[in-house]
Amino acid sequence: MSLVIQEVRNAIGIITFDNYDRRNALSKAFIADIMTAMNSLLYEEVRVIIFRAHPGAKVWSAGHDIMELERPGRDPLGYYDPLEKIIRAIQNCPTPVIALIEGGVWGGACELACICDILIGGPNASFTITPSRFGIPYNPSGILHLINRCGLGAAKEMFFTAQSVNAERALRLGILNHLVAATELEDFTYDLAGAIARNSPLSVSVIKEQLRIFSNALALNPETFERIQGLRRLVWDSEDYIEGKKAFLEKRAPIFKGE
Amino acid sequence: MSLVIQEVRNAIGIITFDNYDRRNALSKAFIADIMTAMNSLLYEEVRVIIFRAHPGAKVWSAGHDIMELERPGRDPLGYYDPLEKIIRAIQNCPTPVIALIEGGVWGGACELACICDILIGGPNASFTITPSRFGIPYNPSGILHLINRCGLGAAKEMFFTAQSVNAERALRLGILNHLVAATELEDFTYDLAGAIARNSPLSVSVIKEQLRIFSNALALNPETFERIQGLRRLVWDSEDYIEGKKAFLEKRAPIFKGE
Amino acid sequence: MSLVIQEVRNAIGIITFDNYDRRNALSKAFIADIMTAMNSLLYEEVRVIIFRAHPGAKVWSAGHDIMELERPGRDPLGYYDPLEKIIRAIQNCPTPVIALIEGGVWGGACELACICDILIGGPNASFTITPSRFGIPYNPSGILHLINRCGLGAAKEMFFTAQSVNAERALRLGILNHLVAATELEDFTYDLAGAIARNSPLSVSVIKEQLRIFSNALALNPETFERIQGLRRLVWDSEDYIEGKKAFLEKRAPIFKGE
Amino acid sequence: MSLVIQEVRNAIGIITFDNYDRRNALSKAFIADIMTAMNSLLYEEVRVIIFRAHPGAKVWSAGHDIMELERPGRDPLGYYDPLEKIIRAIQNCPTPVIALIEGGVWGGACELACICDILIGGPNASFTITPSRFGIPYNPSGILHLINRCGLGAAKEMFFTAQSVNAERALRLGILNHLVAATELEDFTYDLAGAIARNSPLSVSVIKEQLRIFSNALALNPETFERIQGLRRLVWDSEDYIEGKKAFLEKRAPIFKGE
Amino acid sequence: MSLVIQEVRNAIGIITFDNYDRRNALSKAFIADIMTAMNSLLYEEVRVIIFRAHPGAKVWSAGHDIMELERPGRDPLGYYDPLEKIIRAIQNCPTPVIALIEGGVWGGACELACICDILIGGPNASFTITPSRFGIPYNPSGILHLINRCGLGAAKEMFFTAQSVNAERALRLGILNHLVAATELEDFTYDLAGAIARNSPLSVSVIKEQLRIFSNALALNPETFERIQGLRRLVWDSEDYIEGKKAFLEKRAPIFKGE
Amino acid sequence: MSLVIQEVRNAIGIITFDNYDRRNALSKAFIADIMTAMNSLLYEEVRVIIFRAHPGAKVWSAGHDIMELERPGRDPLGYYDPLEKIIRAIQNCPTPVIALIEGGVWGGACELACICDILIGGPNASFTITPSRFGIPYNPSGILHLINRCGLGAAKEMFFTAQSVNAERALRLGILNHLVAATELEDFTYDLAGAIARNSPLSVSVIKEQLRIFSNALALNPETFERIQGLRRLVWDSEDYIEGKKAFLEKRAPIFKGE
Ligand code: NI
Ligand code: NI
Ligand code: NI
Repeated sequence: MSLVIQEVRNAIGIITFDNYDRRNALSKAFIADIMTAMNSLLYEEVRVIIFRAHPGAKVWSAGHDIMELERPGRDPLGYYDPLEKIIRAIQNCPTPVIALIEGGVWGGACELACICDILIGGPNASFTITPSRFGIPYNPSGILHLINRCGLGAAKEMFFTAQSVNAERALRLGILNHLVAATELEDFTYDLAGAIARNSPLSVSVIKEQLRIFSNALALNPETFERIQGLRRLVWDSEDYIEGKKAFLEKRAPIFKGE
Repeated sequence: MSLVIQEVRNAIGIITFDNYDRRNALSKAFIADIMTAMNSLLYEEVRVIIFRAHPGAKVWSAGHDIMELERPGRDPLGYYDPLEKIIRAIQNCPTPVIALIEGGVWGGACELACICDILIGGPNASFTITPSRFGIPYNPSGILHLINRCGLGAAKEMFFTAQSVNAERALRLGILNHLVAATELEDFTYDLAGAIARNSPLSVSVIKEQLRIFSNALALNPETFERIQGLRRLVWDSEDYIEGKKAFLEKRAPIFKGE
Repeated sequence: MSLVIQEVRNAIGIITFDNYDRRNALSKAFIADIMTAMNSLLYEEVRVIIFRAHPGAKVWSAGHDIMELERPGRDPLGYYDPLEKIIRAIQNCPTPVIALIEGGVWGGACELACICDILIGGPNASFTITPSRFGIPYNPSGILHLINRCGLGAAKEMFFTAQSVNAERALRLGILNHLVAATELEDFTYDLAGAIARNSPLSVSVIKEQLRIFSNALALNPETFERIQGLRRLVWDSEDYIEGKKAFLEKRAPIFKGE
Repeated sequence: MSLVIQEVRNAIGIITFDNYDRRNALSKAFIADIMTAMNSLLYEEVRVIIFRAHPGAKVWSAGHDIMELERPGRDPLGYYDPLEKIIRAIQNCPTPVIALIEGGVWGGACELACICDILIGGPNASFTITPSRFGIPYNPSGILHLINRCGLGAAKEMFFTAQSVNAERALRLGILNHLVAATELEDFTYDLAGAIARNSPLSVSVIKEQLRIFSNALALNPETFERIQGLRRLVWDSEDYIEGKKAFLEKRAPIFKGE
Repeated sequence: MSLVIQEVRNAIGIITFDNYDRRNALSKAFIADIMTAMNSLLYEEVRVIIFRAHPGAKVWSAGHDIMELERPGRDPLGYYDPLEKIIRAIQNCPTPVIALIEGGVWGGACELACICDILIGGPNASFTITPSRFGIPYNPSGILHLINRCGLGAAKEMFFTAQSVNAERALRLGILNHLVAATELEDFTYDLAGAIARNSPLSVSVIKEQLRIFSNALALNPETFERIQGLRRLVWDSEDYIEGKKAFLEKRAPIFKGE
Repeated sequence: MSLVIQEVRNAIGIITFDNYDRRNALSKAFIADIMTAMNSLLYEEVRVIIFRAHPGAKVWSAGHDIMELERPGRDPLGYYDPLEKIIRAIQNCPTPVIALIEGGVWGGACELACICDILIGGPNASFTITPSRFGIPYNPSGILHLINRCGLGAAKEMFFTAQSVNAERALRLGILNHLVAATELEDFTYDLAGAIARNSPLSVSVIKEQLRIFSNALALNPETFERIQGLRRLVWDSEDYIEGKKAFLEKRAPIFKGE
């Protein structure tokens, strides 16, 4: 049984996260179901896709399923890992993807939401970037995706403090395109999606692809990238990397030593 | 007779769009007159230039003159086309260019306004990016210019929905530097222009040139560009491209098939 | 005797500017003392550093010490000049650096503040970019640092007008991460710093380094740089460059001729 | 019936051009047959592919089928044109591709040969780059492919003169990896191919992909590319573009006016 | 006891590899000794450094010590691994480094030699790039270093075939700056080194640093790098990766399955 | 009276250096005369330009006029300096430029020759890159121009040793396109130029412009460039910089101290 519910209304595809017991954590299975639903909707020729949690959710998605992280000694955010795959799938999706957001968006889900094209949130939407709380090294493209949506200044604060940004601040920062009262959130989102569905799908998809290319076009040289990879490896080979997960499982605050 | 009015006050050059019957549409003739006026003002050694519509205008500029678009099968936004020329002229202009904006700014005019250095708007200013409504493929540098001013998140929404952004949101997004009451718009703008005129013109022009270079410095490789060009050609060779213009001329909503 | 006061509280290092007679102008000596304090705090293994002026200061820092500028005919912002060194030191500092800002931030201090990772300001904070008022050519990385923090649109206005941006606008532009009432400014800042100090220092420092690399990764070719350098030399070889400093020393408005 | 002959020996796939009446001109049909053969050989899990003409051929390939060029007013070397597709297919092929070359390699075939990974030629091999003889504007990635193989200095001469480079000079320039006597050409090539077939196919294919990425990684910005595209359009819109083809069909030297 | 012999003659530093039992394999200990010797020579203010094997050696260096490779599941060529460190040390060395080469240069030693500034070889010098023979994924900067010295066309052949290039071909390809008879090799090299030692060390070191920067300045974006890293991981996680080392230790040819 | 002789034969423009007393040193006046001649030939619509010394010359050009170098404390190779201007003029010249070379090519003339499109030399041609002999810091684009023509490996040797490369080696390195016996040098060059003149001038000029763009497209970031500029300034501010010129004028070998 799929962990998402899919639906089509007037060329608008809707994918509702239906894994609420696990707070829509981005497990391998859950991501696979989202991607299957996306492909199925594209096959039905929808012109826009909406991602959403159940109405009134307290958590939009809790991010990585920490039990599925790579073992220590391995890059926890490799190119073929599920989160990376869906992030590319959203970018490569020929239709725009709208995130309708109620509740908390944590960790990897923050990148997932931010890579969506348009974010529309209710008053209880919030965004939290958590790797530094767990001692995890984030990957370069993921950092870039978050900078692109949050701006450099806010991204620094979010990464370094791991504190939440609420809906109002998210609107001011441009993370949210629109902040809408809970009662109007659905209608507002469908109206906006409907406007997209009436426009030229060819023009939209080609411009989306250009925007994807441009927003990833950060020029670095091989040595720089290898140094970044080397630095990230210091993190995933460290004792603190083990402590982060251990503390999480023991439901206590981690004690980091910087080693 | 020129389609613009030009004037100099205290080293401030003012170009008033005077083609209101055509809603200041960016025809070849109109663009040529703006560029002539710019050169003439520079010859008079103004230190800043203001672009504006007539006081109280409902439309700042309606964008491309759709009757002058290249025929199907040809890139509608080529390097030597008039809109591209004036967009480069504004960037290369040694003095800052201020857009004083009242009324709607549509389509190609949106890029024209956004490439100005400083945007000051009245309460009825609004911005609409329209290519997806007409089935037109936008060019890479034009997309970049709009991202640079609107931010990536808003640019996506504006491109995909083709809906207007009003003055307040434009201020929040940073499209407008200042939102000023209609009655104070002129004075405010001249004061700000005056501050520029008193500063070192050499320092200003060299910094402007650096900012131009930096804001265009997006590194892509040839294959990527050729793929973008290939994708754009699919659009201008499509049936929807013809439908977009046809519907406009017949004053009806287009019916796009994605082919 | 040092021109700064340094202190450690709960792994938070605090550097208080103590050169108020000179309005914390960025003299060679003052910068050297800040850098010494940073190294000393890092040696004590602080996990975050705060830069601040004295409580209630009217001026956070007045920027370059204009008496120490290179003589005409020489690049006034060379790679090994003190301001450039501290700007790199802040970026290369393995811990985040927070700027707690009260009062005016002028000229080179504006870049110094903007290169800090997180900016928290009180109601009297303000930011002024002054090179065009003095006829000084700004250096490429410095311009980039300011664009990265202020956004392109505001940076253009700030560079060309040399007018101040007040605290509220700075918040809206994202220059300030937070605008806090004067009475709560310290507590707020220590709380935020405390959150950082509890997170994984390895994860934080590696992500900070990635952000540093990304935010400086603007791809230009050698000819373009040499042209920029050539244009900047026209400025520092000009008569206006001499006039700018002369007028400052004579406490009068400069009269620029563009030569 | 296919215009190529395909064969497998010891994990080495061989594609022999069999369109000699048309001098192996790169018609749409011929290119399609080569690509079909490549896919078929990959399906059989060959570890290296050899492209060759019939033993003793005077012409390896005559290049573009000039009758199939796009009509004037259109880019003759678009991203989805057959030559561009096969050039990408050779680069994306997971096995190395060896060109065994006897006879003349002209025009578009010169790029096709040069994009192969290893070139082994007999004494009558020669290379001629012909666009300037026909008044055709070459595409950016194609120019890059030729620079990468011929070196900048020789590429300039070859492009500007349209004169042939013989086998000995081709060896010196590095166009040919090896120049081998006609009688030993086959054995030599199979031996070298055999060495590849014995190595790790994963290691080889991943390194090949890295080399592909690196050799195409030329950083240009959008405005530069659009200017190049604009300049190229001046060529395909010119009278000389028509004259080039006309003279070819009339078997006479063209008379170019530069218009 | 050090595995190298160091010596100074007329401001020329000479480092002779003295680990011939292990065929100068690039073990951690051997690399550490080379780097210690380099630092010691720089401390003595030599103006050029020569790397060499014992006169008449059959093997200059056998490359990686395969027993010291990272375990499967880990990047075998990480940023902080010894080979990577010495390759950066040679590039960052303020004096030119000359490789005087007699005998075979294999595997990682091929990159080590190629990153030297000037290569002077005797008639028995040869170069072999071996990762595909062992099923090892090569790292991006290493590939770049080899392209920079061998040229793209020869690098492809060397990587894919793992066959040796002899001294004459190495001269033609530009791998060797000079090919000198065995009897004159030393004198020739000291003469050339002497010419460097007489020139301006500041001018030389600054130009060397520019050349280092330029030759590494290949612009790629984060997603591309992560994909390369993902592809490389497929190799080091494969069965063939284990087979490569196993076969080497069992002194037999590996049997690769591509899995 | 001009320091060059200009002539047109069959759409081939010929510029003969006529400043042999000064060994065709690149003085401000000499460069101005070359540029005037180029413009005049382009006005006559020549389709290719040849630069040459008098038949049988021992020196093609002695390079910089060392008496005209900027004073210490200033960049000796600024963007608007005469050598930089002519180097750009040759690249921007819409026709190919051929260097017919007899005799020695020294210092700045080496870059001037290498930036020409095609180099044809007689047996006494030789190339010497001299900045390290004089203690001069070379500029980034100049280094790039030399790498592009000589290859990285030879460029390193030429820069670090300041020794000459003779005609045969220059041919092997690709510096010379052709090495021709003295008696046939003229005819050979005119024949090759004639081939260019018969081709499509539009196609040739657009391809030349693409090659210019590509060969300069080296992506660096601002901080890197500023560091290069900083390092170069260390050189022109050094004592050795003064010693280099002093020794030249006193016709003795310089004694460099590295300070
Ligand atoms: Ni072709
Ligand atoms: Ni290795
Ligand atoms: Ni020079």
